[in-house]
Amino acid sequence: MNAEIIAVGSELLLGQIVNSNAKYLSEQMAHLGINVYHHSVVGDNPDRLTDVLKVATNRSNLIIMTGGLGPTKDDLTKETVAALLGKKLVYDPETEKRMDMYFKQRNRIMTENNRKQAMIIEGSHVFTNEHGLACGIGIKTSEYQIIMLPGPPRELIPMFNKFVTPYLKGQISKVNHIQSRVLRFFDIGESQLVEIIDDLLESQTNPTIAPLASGGEVTLRLTVMGEGEEKNRNSLDEVEEKILSRLGEFFYGYGEDTLFENIVKHLKEKNKTIASAESITGGLFATEVTAINGASLVFPGSIICYSNAAKRSLLSVSNEILNDEGAVSHTCAKELAEKVRINFQSDYGISFTGVAGPDPLEGKPPGVVYMGIASKDRTVSYELKLAGSRQNIRERSAKYGAYYLLQWMRKETKKVDE
Amino acid sequence: MNAEIIAVGSELLLGQIVNSNAKYLSEQMAHLGINVYHHSVVGDNPDRLTDVLKVATNRSNLIIMTGGLGPTKDDLTKETVAALLGKKLVYDPETEKRMDMYFKQRNRIMTENNRKQAMIIEGSHVFTNEHGLACGIGIKTSEYQIIMLPGPPRELIPMFNKFVTPYLKGQISKVNHIQSRVLRFFDIGESQLVEIIDDLLESQTNPTIAPLASGGEVTLRLTVMGEGEEKNRNSLDEVEEKILSRLGEFFYGYGEDTLFENIVKHLKEKNKTIASAESITGGLFATEVTAINGASLVFPGSIICYSNAAKRSLLSVSNEILNDEGAVSHTCAKELAEKVRINFQSDYGISFTGVAGPDPLEGKPPGVVYMGIASKDRTVSYELKLAGSRQNIRERSAKYGAYYLLQWMRKETKKVDE
Repeated sequence: MNAEIIAVGSELLLGQIVNSNAKYLSEQMAHLGINVYHHSVVGDNPDRLTDVLKVATNRSNLIIMTGGLGPTKDDLTKETVAALLGKKLVYDPETEKRMDMYFKQRNRIMTENNRKQAMIIEGSHVFTNEHGLACGIGIKTSEYQIIMLPGPPRELIPMFNKFVTPYLKGQISKVNHIQSRVLRFFDIGESQLVEIIDDLLESQTNPTIAPLASGGEVTLRLTVMGEGEEKNRNSLDEVEEKILSRLGEFFYGYGEDTLFENIVKHLKEKNKTIASAESITGGLFATEVTAINGASLVFPGSIICYSNAAKRSLLSVSNEILNDEGAVSHTCAKELAEKVRINFQSDYGISFTGVAGPDPLEGKPPGVVYMGIASKDRTVSYELKLAGSRQNIRERSAKYGAYYLLQWMRKETKKVDE
Repeated sequence: MNAEIIAVGSELLLGQIVNSNAKYLSEQMAHLGINVYHHSVVGDNPDRLTDVLKVATNRSNLIIMTGGLGPTKDDLTKETVAALLGKKLVYDPETEKRMDMYFKQRNRIMTENNRKQAMIIEGSHVFTNEHGLACGIGIKTSEYQIIMLPGPPRELIPMFNKFVTPYLKGQISKVNHIQSRVLRFFDIGESQLVEIIDDLLESQTNPTIAPLASGGEVTLRLTVMGEGEEKNRNSLDEVEEKILSRLGEFFYGYGEDTLFENIVKHLKEKNKTIASAESITGGLFATEVTAINGASLVFPGSIICYSNAAKRSLLSVSNEILNDEGAVSHTCAKELAEKVRINFQSDYGISFTGVAGPDPLEGKPPGVVYMGIASKDRTVSYELKLAGSRQNIRERSAKYGAYYLLQWMRKETKKVDE
């Protein structure tokens, strides 16, 4: 089955909203093993919509449309599809009944506009809308099928999950079982990573290997299509082993958990706590950690010592260090990590001091960053030389901190298959 | 000019990322007065991309492409466009020089794959990439023009702002002078705001009024098209006055400056400093403030007192307050704001304490937040009851803090027209 997704709505073309439905539906299609080759967005205009539909029906056999099912004059998805297929619109008694109830419950009067939403294309399949008025519609010809879904994600997502997924699954051969595994890497760029496993990417068929870079992390999604779960898992293991034999040093975990989610998870498992002393990152490390549910179990807090006066008064960094070696130094990073650990009485302390830019600091250029990690027994420091914008340098500093901390703590990670 | 946007990348069709570039570019096109009639997404496949391009070049005269300019074999936007136009790819010496420098600075070796990124289509216009390797390319035929931009938003957005916007503005007829002004509002939802000025929105022609909600802030962009700058400014003033007579209490500034940028600007102007004590926000306020250039002049630091032990030991909140009124209380918020101000010897102190969820705290439900603002002379506290996810509650708390602080400091704001 070759699918494509058409979103109807001028608000998308004006840049007022992002097409999150296309992302959601594509993800669902991937899970179903259905290939999606195109997304389109077109405005509330019958001629342009007809043209887009003609192109789509010539190249795809499953077309999912979103939006344009509302009550206003602008909403014309059903009308346009019906005209293209030479079919009539008819009232769906079930939907009419549901709408009557909806308005009665709310003590509101149903307008003629609203009643339009109870119309379906003759001979179509109706998907109930449990979170709004517009029902979804599926219509088949000998060459293709079109599924029309309401635009608001809070209506579309539950409708798709509950009614459209089983409808499509019923049409897909049961022979193939799809399974995937995500490997996560840090401290390596996408192009460098791709080059290292170039031959594996070239020769991939089943499992497939899909690299993706996002927020400074690179992931590889391995997807296998086969007859049984165990056989699939073995294929995934085999490819993973080949990949990790080359990229193991950059690997930090499986699945959808980010670096910071991994940190909170590991600290919880080991029953340990961490506090941060942040200069260059200005609270970014703490913000990322506390964004995660249950962070309070592992994170008592942080001191953001943006000024040198704060480093001195709140974390007792000596004048000697600040004057002789500077705030941007290995020694200061170590001192901050140790002192913040003691201040918060935590198991670990982590610190960030450096130059975010755009101006140099203490004669050091933007991108020079020192990080310290301290436990009761030992303290280490790291030097980074990052490039990029102020915000980029700050974000990557926080991530490197998370990565080095994870390396410090981690012995093993658990495999997660989807 | 009729525009359309084509995104190239299988990761979009797999639903791994959302097409935020299409939203951003559509918004920018709307500001430039250029109509966008279609968005498309197509995978890293030369045949399908060629087909999509053929459809596009038949119906639009400005085609903006995003993605597929990277170093891997999958990246084939330039190659496909060149083949369609019957043109050759050539090395751009400027881009080569920039790339050499990039790799030298990072002590990394440039691979052959990377060198591919220095290639452009013969006879094309080059848009410099100041945040990555792939340059942008603009190529014209007698019937249409194609602009190719890198996929990562952190590269695309600055490139578009700095280089593509003036390039397109130069092509738009100079007869009509477009001028716009953005009014910024907080503490009011988009639909409520729209309802209050419904009649103005209904009757708008020139200037137009475009509402936009983003990150909890609502903006109104007034755009006037006319013959002269002064006449335009008068029209904008007139509409603005009508709007602010109804919405003045929610208005906080002009232009693209966010709440936090406004705060840093105001503090700098008044030569004042602020420190934060953060529990629920976990460093988010500090992170937002320190994201802004020159924050070190106005922000000495913050204490993130996530645990009650930290509130006690680092900010001397008394056991009486924590036990009797609780950490989530007006009294605790005031105490935190006053103590952090003294700790950092700053002009203002601001504090955040509350329940981010998903679980209740001290018998209070998620969304209950107390904020304190302290100066030398007085301390106030605010209570918020927010709904939404953990991250949403945290973000809006930090924004309300910024908004109340701004109200405290602000007497007047300066008009900014674009």
